[in-house]
Amino acid sequence: MSTLAVAGGRVLLPNHSIEQADVLVDADAGEILDVAPDLAPEADETLDASGGLVIPGLVNAHGHAAMTLLRGYADDKPLEAWLQEDIWPAEAELTPEDVAAGTRLAAVEMIRSGTTAFADMYFHVGEVVEAVREAGLRARVGHGVVTVGKDEEAARADFAESLSVAEEYDGAADGRIRTAVMPHAPHTVGTGYFEEFVPAAREAGLPFHFHLNETEAYLDPVAEEAGVRPTEYADDLGLLAEDTWVAHGVHLDSGEVDRLAESDTAVVHCPASNMKLASGMAPVQAMLDAGVPVALGTDGAASNNDLDLFGELRDAAMLGKLAADDAEAVDADAAVRMATEGGAEALGFDGGRIEAGAKADLAVVDLEAAHLTPQHDLVSHLTYAVRGSDVRHTVCDGAVLMRDREVLTLDEEAVRERAEEAASELVARAED
Amino acid sequence: MSTLAVAGGRVLLPNHSIEQADVLVDADAGEILDVAPDLAPEADETLDASGGLVIPGLVNAHGHAAMTLLRGYADDKPLEAWLQEDIWPAEAELTPEDVAAGTRLAAVEMIRSGTTAFADMYFHVGEVVEAVREAGLRARVGHGVVTVGKDEEAARADFAESLSVAEEYDGAADGRIRTAVMPHAPHTVGTGYFEEFVPAAREAGLPFHFHLNETEAYLDPVAEEAGVRPTEYADDLGLLAEDTWVAHGVHLDSGEVDRLAESDTAVVHCPASNMKLASGMAPVQAMLDAGVPVALGTDGAASNNDLDLFGELRDAAMLGKLAADDAEAVDADAAVRMATEGGAEALGFDGGRIEAGAKADLAVVDLEAAHLTPQHDLVSHLTYAVRGSDVRHTVCDGAVLMRDREVLTLDEEAVRERAEEAASELVARAED
Repeated sequence: MSTLAVAGGRVLLPNHSIEQADVLVDADAGEILDVAPDLAPEADETLDASGGLVIPGLVNAHGHAAMTLLRGYADDKPLEAWLQEDIWPAEAELTPEDVAAGTRLAAVEMIRSGTTAFADMYFHVGEVVEAVREAGLRARVGHGVVTVGKDEEAARADFAESLSVAEEYDGAADGRIRTAVMPHAPHTVGTGYFEEFVPAAREAGLPFHFHLNETEAYLDPVAEEAGVRPTEYADDLGLLAEDTWVAHGVHLDSGEVDRLAESDTAVVHCPASNMKLASGMAPVQAMLDAGVPVALGTDGAASNNDLDLFGELRDAAMLGKLAADDAEAVDADAAVRMATEGGAEALGFDGGRIEAGAKADLAVVDLEAAHLTPQHDLVSHLTYAVRGSDVRHTVCDGAVLMRDREVLTLDEEAVRERAEEAASELVARAED
Repeated sequence: MSTLAVAGGRVLLPNHSIEQADVLVDADAGEILDVAPDLAPEADETLDASGGLVIPGLVNAHGHAAMTLLRGYADDKPLEAWLQEDIWPAEAELTPEDVAAGTRLAAVEMIRSGTTAFADMYFHVGEVVEAVREAGLRARVGHGVVTVGKDEEAARADFAESLSVAEEYDGAADGRIRTAVMPHAPHTVGTGYFEEFVPAAREAGLPFHFHLNETEAYLDPVAEEAGVRPTEYADDLGLLAEDTWVAHGVHLDSGEVDRLAESDTAVVHCPASNMKLASGMAPVQAMLDAGVPVALGTDGAASNNDLDLFGELRDAAMLGKLAADDAEAVDADAAVRMATEGGAEALGFDGGRIEAGAKADLAVVDLEAAHLTPQHDLVSHLTYAVRGSDVRHTVCDGAVLMRDREVLTLDEEAVRERAEEAASELVARAED
């Protein structure tokens, strides 16, 4: 067994108390062995955490990683126009090589900002898997299905691909990759396809991930088709369950919130994307009060425009207050929980907390900075003042992905150059 | 004449086009001499901007700098309770030495994140002036006046101090410091004191800065006292004018927006503070449409919790869309204008733009980063993706305040240590 000690710093414990301690990791098994003072002498390798805070690696529970290629390509437009006029035409030109380049860029960005696990709904999933394997991150990946606008054969093939991709890659990269079936949303996939494929996916033990009530435009088509709100419709189709996690949940009525809580379906709050696309304010405190598991996500970089989950911690706490009209809502503690154990639970990973037995997914935040002075409350700092650029080291599955702000698993400069080139060519094709 | 060239980068021009050019600065006069290719050989000193974008120094047009000492001290509370239970008791214990320590910490943080000018409404203004002088920043400073809860003598003394302080320090630090008279808000200063002191301030040529309609609680007391909305009340008292700038403007009706536009009174939008205190959403696009000059501010670090104005650029664009229920509202271009020339105009400084004749207040943003790749649109990046930690150099009044992320005018480590110590002692006294 080879061991790694993250030593000399303070540690954010699962109850959010903070202690001066070292974290000893079984680097082979990728698990935390112990959290206690003076563990460094036992270890084969040491990461210096002095002046820093050891936190669970953040979990970005909803996104489309390769959309980094479209960062800043089309801004300041509402969701439907943005998708139809800019994003879908560009995505129609996406090659597997583009997805490879964009996902690697996303991986570098996430590693640099302390994210160790993410969810990805996109296309060319084999390329996503390869990028995740190389980066050393943990991920739930899947192929996004849309059937509207497709003929029956193409629609069936699309849904079937989401199933076969999920079966093929589950457990890849030494188990760091898990999968899910990913129908885009209740109203963009025909009822018949859900009825056909959901039982097959459940039989194969595969979870679901989809967009739920992101904008008001998500509601009417389902009401017209089925006469109910989308959450009830999804529940009736067998989509809601403890292993399902849904994105956004902006326009939920109280009955839908209760149904999500009863089915233990996690909701991934994406505050930056919801603001940028003027989608609305998710009732996050109401969800927490009802017992809905809530996680955080950046969504794609084109609607954010970065993948720094510390931004979502801050946005969630801030927007949650406005949504509830209550400055006590979505406090710093709740935001940190959503970004760590909330995300791990949504994605079904045994992480999100620094304690013996948990996955060794962690980040060290450098506290010696003007914007983190004074240190009245470090949980407050994690939510309101820490930024991704404060992360000194990132560790996933016991492996060091970034040491002293140098990414070790990917050649950052080559990744940036390749992405810049792929993005330019993609946009040129889309606008041709 | 000694000259400085900011060379090898691209430059954000006043029309927001971007050109490869050098910026030549008269370091003695603190003015930009020329913006053109290949100016570096002429200069006495050179700052390397290669791979970077030269932008106007950002302007933080509303805040309370020394509140950095209370960063993270009390979060997740509504404005009135937060002030009465936490902030005012702590501020009652503030010594001049605390203000000196907190303002220096704020200065380090602003320099590190590319802010070159700020407004400060606080106490012990002499200490603020000394910190600004040493830091090399530009500022509009003043003494905040509250008369409610004070006897007449104390109330008159407080307002008189705001005037005398403004007269004393105007033009200090080689003209980098300007001043204003700063009554806290229409409802926290008695009508009689306004009637007595406003004419005197106007006669002395001093501008005003105050909080306007930050929360709904600002409205009723003025309606009860004067039977009108606060903006009309302020106008009737002679407070609104082209040289006045007000903070927040969250709860404005259309008549108030028009009155601000007609009087050319600038409004400083503080989106992070407004979210964190659940104050509400300012009608920023409506103000822009009406012709109100709009700037950006962080407010104090206790309600933010940082002084990185790039956060406000992003928050303004995002929250402005929700407030207008329109994803096209407050676009990236508008956000950059508010943070640069909008701020300079609000504070009455001849800066906020990179062109010959303007004040040499600028920052160089490093674009060679994963989260700023690809480079489809650099104005979008400034609003949605750049963070303060991307700033490589900061220049104010022709002097280099930060070079290659090293602050040159203040001893950053000493400033942090002194602030940590002052904050601990302050909180201990307040809780005693």
